[in-house]
Amino acid sequence: MKNILNWLLLLIPIAIGLEFAEADPLYIFIASAGAIIPLAGWMGRSTEWISEHLGPGIGGLLNATFGNAAELIIAIMALRAGLHDVVKASITGSIIGNILLVLGLAVVAGGLKRPELKFNRTAASLGTTLLALSAIALVVPGLFHHLSGRAPEERTLSLEIAIVLAVTYVLSLIFSLHTHKHLYVGEDSEDALGMHHVPLWRATVVLLVATGFVALMSEMLVGTVEHAAERLGMSDVFVGVFLLAIIGNAAEHSTAVLMAMKNKMDLAINIAVGSSLQVALLVAPLLVFVSYLFGRPMDLVFTTFEIAAVVLAAAVVNLIALDGESNWMEGALLLAVYGILGMAFYALPG
Amino acid sequence: MKNILNWLLLLIPIAIGLEFAEADPLYIFIASAGAIIPLAGWMGRSTEWISEHLGPGIGGLLNATFGNAAELIIAIMALRAGLHDVVKASITGSIIGNILLVLGLAVVAGGLKRPELKFNRTAASLGTTLLALSAIALVVPGLFHHLSGRAPEERTLSLEIAIVLAVTYVLSLIFSLHTHKHLYVGEDSEDALGMHHVPLWRATVVLLVATGFVALMSEMLVGTVEHAAERLGMSDVFVGVFLLAIIGNAAEHSTAVLMAMKNKMDLAINIAVGSSLQVALLVAPLLVFVSYLFGRPMDLVFTTFEIAAVVLAAAVVNLIALDGESNWMEGALLLAVYGILGMAFYALPG
Amino acid sequence: MKNILNWLLLLIPIAIGLEFAEADPLYIFIASAGAIIPLAGWMGRSTEWISEHLGPGIGGLLNATFGNAAELIIAIMALRAGLHDVVKASITGSIIGNILLVLGLAVVAGGLKRPELKFNRTAASLGTTLLALSAIALVVPGLFHHLSGRAPEERTLSLEIAIVLAVTYVLSLIFSLHTHKHLYVGEDSEDALGMHHVPLWRATVVLLVATGFVALMSEMLVGTVEHAAERLGMSDVFVGVFLLAIIGNAAEHSTAVLMAMKNKMDLAINIAVGSSLQVALLVAPLLVFVSYLFGRPMDLVFTTFEIAAVVLAAAVVNLIALDGESNWMEGALLLAVYGILGMAFYALPG
Repeated sequence: MKNILNWLLLLIPIAIGLEFAEADPLYIFIASAGAIIPLAGWMGRSTEWISEHLGPGIGGLLNATFGNAAELIIAIMALRAGLHDVVKASITGSIIGNILLVLGLAVVAGGLKRPELKFNRTAASLGTTLLALSAIALVVPGLFHHLSGRAPEERTLSLEIAIVLAVTYVLSLIFSLHTHKHLYVGEDSEDALGMHHVPLWRATVVLLVATGFVALMSEMLVGTVEHAAERLGMSDVFVGVFLLAIIGNAAEHSTAVLMAMKNKMDLAINIAVGSSLQVALLVAPLLVFVSYLFGRPMDLVFTTFEIAAVVLAAAVVNLIALDGESNWMEGALLLAVYGILGMAFYALPG
Repeated sequence: MKNILNWLLLLIPIAIGLEFAEADPLYIFIASAGAIIPLAGWMGRSTEWISEHLGPGIGGLLNATFGNAAELIIAIMALRAGLHDVVKASITGSIIGNILLVLGLAVVAGGLKRPELKFNRTAASLGTTLLALSAIALVVPGLFHHLSGRAPEERTLSLEIAIVLAVTYVLSLIFSLHTHKHLYVGEDSEDALGMHHVPLWRATVVLLVATGFVALMSEMLVGTVEHAAERLGMSDVFVGVFLLAIIGNAAEHSTAVLMAMKNKMDLAINIAVGSSLQVALLVAPLLVFVSYLFGRPMDLVFTTFEIAAVVLAAAVVNLIALDGESNWMEGALLLAVYGILGMAFYALPG
Repeated sequence: MKNILNWLLLLIPIAIGLEFAEADPLYIFIASAGAIIPLAGWMGRSTEWISEHLGPGIGGLLNATFGNAAELIIAIMALRAGLHDVVKASITGSIIGNILLVLGLAVVAGGLKRPELKFNRTAASLGTTLLALSAIALVVPGLFHHLSGRAPEERTLSLEIAIVLAVTYVLSLIFSLHTHKHLYVGEDSEDALGMHHVPLWRATVVLLVATGFVALMSEMLVGTVEHAAERLGMSDVFVGVFLLAIIGNAAEHSTAVLMAMKNKMDLAINIAVGSSLQVALLVAPLLVFVSYLFGRPMDLVFTTFEIAAVVLAAAVVNLIALDGESNWMEGALLLAVYGILGMAFYALPG
């Protein structure tokens, strides 16, 4: 899996070449999007290597905070270009995608190997309960907007909620790294993948190089996204919710699927739910704060359809987690719901 | 119970007589509606007799597919008459009715006999999770409509979703009849009712005769429904959601209540949830496809109130299933919610 | 805790003095609000003392019915003054507040003392399931309103639903005091607090005196609420949902937190959920009936935001209850959601 993805690294020089040749933006979009997939994976891997050297405390912090760094970089580039709708769509898309697509694929992959996929109900439902509460917090400004429609209050409310979310994120770090770290011991996905220790200097070089290329590719991606969306007959929101979210999360996807195939469903759920939580509690508020630096404050007002999709996805993952086991049919239905949401977002006007 | 229902078969000649006498359509509506109740029961029973002869594989398929045949026939007749709102209302009404009315009655009936009704939490919540996902898939076109309001896209989206639902139905057959058939072994409601084997020829004759009469009665029912609704001061949607859905599901109702009284709550839940699932995954897409044959494509755009009712009902049944036991008070509240929804649908304009 | 609250009783003479001195209404509002907090506690305590003398049957009935008497008195005073929006807001505020604020504080308080707060999953989820169903029943008129907007039908529908809720309340008394009283045995919060028996005459005097003062303070509170809201820059709805609901429930708050700190999470959940249930099933319909006596019928049409908040809060408490254990992080998120809803209600126009 990993080796196949690495072939996509060849798209880096291709994307740069196309950019210099002033080629059709659609091709630049496709090349840069494809190149980000393995780069995000390398960023994640090198972060975990560094974490190992720094010990469970600071290492865990690093790992928890940089897990969605690739997504964050793409979103910041889009923010700088003023594409607020795309940025917000990539937030909801990432939450929906992790729950429905990543977990759906993992459950199907695992479920085809064995009839029942058992997991620890209590641990899983702790994560999904936190996710449900985070999702509610995140959609409140949107509800507010559709009921009052007063822009200045919306921006203030979004900033206030971003602060609450950021504080909650700090609390969740205290929870997972300090008071309840025993819940997360032994859930190391790298161990499960049978990886070896990598020297600190090499890990740092890999991280820096990968981050630099992600930033470059993201800039090219964002610069061509509107043109590409138009050419493909898609709205900006659809591109954000589905294309960008899938690209940014591709590394998590493959790890979660691998874990499920090895019957490590706890880990697969943890990746999908943890990544969604991080988007809701860290990425979303961070983007609001960064938007103030760029001088064009972004609110957290999502479209009604995005709100419905996030709330339903959060409800669904709780149902899956609460019954303590899963099977391929539940996975297939998660994918079916994802597909149906995709069709609806595709048909919605921009 | 069954014997009492059979007296209603006398309404068949009465309905035909009224039709020939060109009597008040309201009486024809009542007579044909009453006649369908026992006929639907005979269709179900003869299907199960045939299934026994065909073995678990094809027999199970037959049973799973013809379980809601009476409802399907009524809906097709209504579709032919162009009553799209009534057809769609009968879909949501069937889902809500199975969950709130059938399960509510079953839980009250069982709960009056013993304080706690225990059931297998895992098995029950598998069914209800699938139902929640199906319900979400089903309401997406309605959400889409209320947000964009563009009819051509709606019809395309409805057709796409119908295809996804139909594929999901095929997958659910593979699940229940092949990969996970062990979950459904020993859950034979006929055994539990103490039935005897019936010769194949007799079962086939009963099925054909019952089906023929259901088709005839359905045509008379549909031909008079608008007149009857007007006379009774009800909207078409109310008639579809409550009257038609109750008539089409009366056989399931009585079986589920009997099972609950015998402390076979797993079976009662299975009937209520399984029937709802079949409506969402088989009946709904089939009606969309058939509407194309009649040259007047039907979409899956439900009213906001129908969407809210289906989503809330699916959430409720999951709550009931996840705690692994029930009691008469939960049943009473299911019936109270059904009653309140009935009052609201009654008061809503057509 | 109790002793500290009792100091607030000094606000009674202060409030009366301010009223006579025709002081700034804002100060009268603050003084009367503060005085109600300990008075509500004394009403609850004296009711429990009387209940002990009357035996489990009638005593339980008394206890269950007068548990929210202080809230009811405030609401009736507001009803008499024609402040329907404030009354309705205090209903939803009480439900949300009990679930998010009371339970959140209790979980945080308990969770800071021990890593896992275990409780009986089945008992807890019985209460939360009833609450979810009650919440659905309560929000139906609001849904109806936002879809049809026909006032006369709304009032009829609200009255019908109030009757269904009241009948359900009687059923819930039969359930908790007769058919399933074993579920509630040994859950006596006074025992847990180490209280002593109080003579009947003394308990009755305390109840009468406390009730009289609550009525007086409520009248002064309601008479100044609009002025105070304006001065504080708050809408009437915000005052109802947050200020009045917190004041009326302060006694439950402190008891639930104390129980959680003693690791009696079952009791803490029972207080929070039971109080919400009582508001939905007893207080809400009673207020509708009383509004007819005042000649200005009140409907049960809540704002969309109130509906969303109640449904989400009911869903959240089910998630918390179903996984059978809790920790400080879940409590912190309940409080975060409460805070975010507060910010949104604050920003919403009147």
